[in-house]
Amino acid sequence: MTDQSPTRTGGRAARRAARAAPLADHLRPIRPGMTGGQYKPLSDADMAAIHAAALQALEEIGLVDAPESGVAYLTAAGAVLGDDGRIRFPRALVEDTLARANRSVTLHSRDGKHDLELSGARVHYGTAGAAVHMVDVEGRNYRECGIQDLHDAARICDRLDNIHFLQRPMVARDILDNREMDLNTVYACSAGTTKHIGTSFTDPAYVPAALEMLHLIAGGEDKWRERPFMSNSNCFVVPPMKFATESCQVMEACIEGGMPVLLLSAGMAGATAPSTVAGAIVQACAECLAGLVYVNAVKPGHPAVFGTWPFGLDLRSGAMTGGSGEQALLTAGCAQMHKFYGVPGGAAAGIADSKLPDMQAGWEQMCSNVMAGLSGLNMVYEAAGMHASLLGFCHESLILGDDLIGQALRCVRGIEVNDETLALDQMREVCLGGPGHYLGTEQTLSRMELDHVYPALGDRTSPKEWAELGKPDLLEKATARKEEILSDRAAARFAPDLDHAIRAAFNIHLPA
Amino acid sequence: MTDQSPTRTGGRAARRAARAAPLADHLRPIRPGMTGGQYKPLSDADMAAIHAAALQALEEIGLVDAPESGVAYLTAAGAVLGDDGRIRFPRALVEDTLARANRSVTLHSRDGKHDLELSGARVHYGTAGAAVHMVDVEGRNYRECGIQDLHDAARICDRLDNIHFLQRPMVARDILDNREMDLNTVYACSAGTTKHIGTSFTDPAYVPAALEMLHLIAGGEDKWRERPFMSNSNCFVVPPMKFATESCQVMEACIEGGMPVLLLSAGMAGATAPSTVAGAIVQACAECLAGLVYVNAVKPGHPAVFGTWPFGLDLRSGAMTGGSGEQALLTAGCAQMHKFYGVPGGAAAGIADSKLPDMQAGWEQMCSNVMAGLSGLNMVYEAAGMHASLLGFCHESLILGDDLIGQALRCVRGIEVNDETLALDQMREVCLGGPGHYLGTEQTLSRMELDHVYPALGDRTSPKEWAELGKPDLLEKATARKEEILSDRAAARFAPDLDHAIRAAFNIHLPA
Repeated sequence: MTDQSPTRTGGRAARRAARAAPLADHLRPIRPGMTGGQYKPLSDADMAAIHAAALQALEEIGLVDAPESGVAYLTAAGAVLGDDGRIRFPRALVEDTLARANRSVTLHSRDGKHDLELSGARVHYGTAGAAVHMVDVEGRNYRECGIQDLHDAARICDRLDNIHFLQRPMVARDILDNREMDLNTVYACSAGTTKHIGTSFTDPAYVPAALEMLHLIAGGEDKWRERPFMSNSNCFVVPPMKFATESCQVMEACIEGGMPVLLLSAGMAGATAPSTVAGAIVQACAECLAGLVYVNAVKPGHPAVFGTWPFGLDLRSGAMTGGSGEQALLTAGCAQMHKFYGVPGGAAAGIADSKLPDMQAGWEQMCSNVMAGLSGLNMVYEAAGMHASLLGFCHESLILGDDLIGQALRCVRGIEVNDETLALDQMREVCLGGPGHYLGTEQTLSRMELDHVYPALGDRTSPKEWAELGKPDLLEKATARKEEILSDRAAARFAPDLDHAIRAAFNIHLPA
Repeated sequence: MTDQSPTRTGGRAARRAARAAPLADHLRPIRPGMTGGQYKPLSDADMAAIHAAALQALEEIGLVDAPESGVAYLTAAGAVLGDDGRIRFPRALVEDTLARANRSVTLHSRDGKHDLELSGARVHYGTAGAAVHMVDVEGRNYRECGIQDLHDAARICDRLDNIHFLQRPMVARDILDNREMDLNTVYACSAGTTKHIGTSFTDPAYVPAALEMLHLIAGGEDKWRERPFMSNSNCFVVPPMKFATESCQVMEACIEGGMPVLLLSAGMAGATAPSTVAGAIVQACAECLAGLVYVNAVKPGHPAVFGTWPFGLDLRSGAMTGGSGEQALLTAGCAQMHKFYGVPGGAAAGIADSKLPDMQAGWEQMCSNVMAGLSGLNMVYEAAGMHASLLGFCHESLILGDDLIGQALRCVRGIEVNDETLALDQMREVCLGGPGHYLGTEQTLSRMELDHVYPALGDRTSPKEWAELGKPDLLEKATARKEEILSDRAAARFAPDLDHAIRAAFNIHLPA
């Protein structure tokens, strides 16, 4: 920055003018794919012990209920089908798979500007889930959610810098036919955002039609296969240690169609997984390792995300809880195992148990989100908008989540230490005959946009200013922002010709 | 646990009966002094660079404005007074001090049950600050705070498990005379809680009278000196790199009186400290190292807490902000430097910029609190109740902070990895011919209280249950809890004789 400022004043004026323009992407203080990993809940010995237990579970317990096709793929690869119907995995097979599996996966965006490069400890945040309720903030009410709510969520995500992808966060309960629901979900998400999308399919038979729509959107099958902008969130197991037969068939169809897969193991610690954090991680790793063998047996090197998603349980009631410290540890521990295996991975964070976007929701969402980021989780799913332990989705909360995740990303970026940031020269200048404060130093002014994240809706006024502004309410501000985003009807919609073509081929429920 | 259960059913019934009783302290899932440190924002090279810069700053820039007595102590110890009035510290002096300084400090409680053992990465959370407003949640209003508000805060802290100490969080603005305010602060805090207390003194002349009151409370000077249950929060520097002359004199008087000191350096990054996170940490370390030399020059080995408290600034407005990601990094980085130096340390976390205990407050308080804990900060000051960037204190928020900090402490406790928690035997039992779920296993039942933290006011009901309960509001629940705590007039008050003796000697403003 010094080269542009012959005089102090001229330089400052130039910088002020420059600051009026938005920062270039590479200068933004936070970005998708920042590198975490500074937080390590597990020691090296802990990780080795977890891996050893997972290998033993795969070798001795194995998984039951693979579809016939899966049995054929897996046994051909070297897995062993027992008389009890369980498929067991020799450790050499698992280790060979890990050696050959993808170390990085690109999850493409439709616009090419929001591609996610999953590798190392690079962190991305986005939505996910299968909420069945929409949270109405103003009415403090839960109502059934529908396809319009989903589409609106997509359009909101499209406009939020710190929501890096849209995995379908809720199910369209107003479409009763499963095939129509799945296809309209693909449409509602794709028509709302050009960011990467994750979705799910109820039945393998629906995949070909979905691919047909995706080919239309991409401009041809070759274009789709070159840059598949949608991935399949695949619950391929029913924990503990059972394949989900139909979902495995969906997975095979998606692999065939060139769609990346998220290998999602969603055990509930204390019900469908051991109640201990370590035990739930062991089982999730064992199940996802089985899934990784499966994917690579179907198509070596197919892009797959290692989706260890163990959830917490409130053992007093037996109900799910996602907002706890235990949940944050489950997710962070899994993230570290992804690094141990050297495979791209994802898990769930940011879930609130609270029914509304209140103080509890804030602390719950931040706890697991910041720990997930600091542990270097590649894909932080469920990161925004999720309430009532995944039963409710809230647009206002999604919008506030953009600020919350921005703050978490600033923490992930961490502390830069170099001669300039150590600032000894500044200290000398300021203290020894200088002004006695740093407010006007070149470094303070030049770095104020590069180093600092400013919240969009978060309030930093003094009590006096706040009173003068009429004591603005956080949720009312979020509602206003929601209405502003949703009133912009043009954003991210398909071109009219494309939209027409899709509507000609499919029964699209959203109004044109 | 297995030895008490000859049959499965009998064991379960016995456990259920046992669970009705509160858990013994050593069995509680979270406790004061749990060990953090799993999060390391700085590399070894980063820490060495920060230390080198701090040493260079002390050697080349030094600090100005020490009182005469301080100049005498410091130059006798080997510091050098320059012609410019600045005292410079040869690195050998700093390194010798670090080699001789306390590696651990005990901050005593009045009841002996809440002593804080500061060493290593042991974590404790508590209040602190000098708020000038009380936040009235129901009225959404800020009003001046007074001595009764402070006393009420003390009484509330006394009842919250996860608030481990009470440092005076607000100033009694209804007592205009500084001496009376300081002495009534000592009374209001001590009369409200038996936990460790931190306070401040406006003038060194007030310290002897405060010690007189403390001797009365302790039952004699010898008893006080044996277990000093109050520490002096001492802003001994006015950053950058200036001693606060009067506060240094206060510090000398407190050392003389046997009171532990918190060496508090509260620079504002971008105003009174460099704007970069690393630079603000360098300056805070330099200033606290100077303070440590000072304390050890007055009295070798006197208990001191290394209080690097750099605060964040919103550089757009020049106003303080404590709820940011930058703040969380400042605090976590300082915590790691305390480990580097091997001295007990403290810093600020849990500050909300938000004016009310809303979603923003929740995410702001959790972000820095959980990162402070994970970084192993010994004393997390300002951890609960603080709003409006330290200008406002809120009783309801303090109460909710107990849940929030409980969750952070669960994260600090981390992931236990051993044969039992890896749970391979359980997996085998459950999956191979077993029930297919873990709900009823011995391990799930026996660990449900030992492993899991349950919120007191945080809501985990389903949307249906929540609606049936009348959609309880989090803040209303906190207000009800506040009223319940404060209605118990007997708790923690002084014995009548002692109270009478204190009131005979001092003008106590709180009604008897």
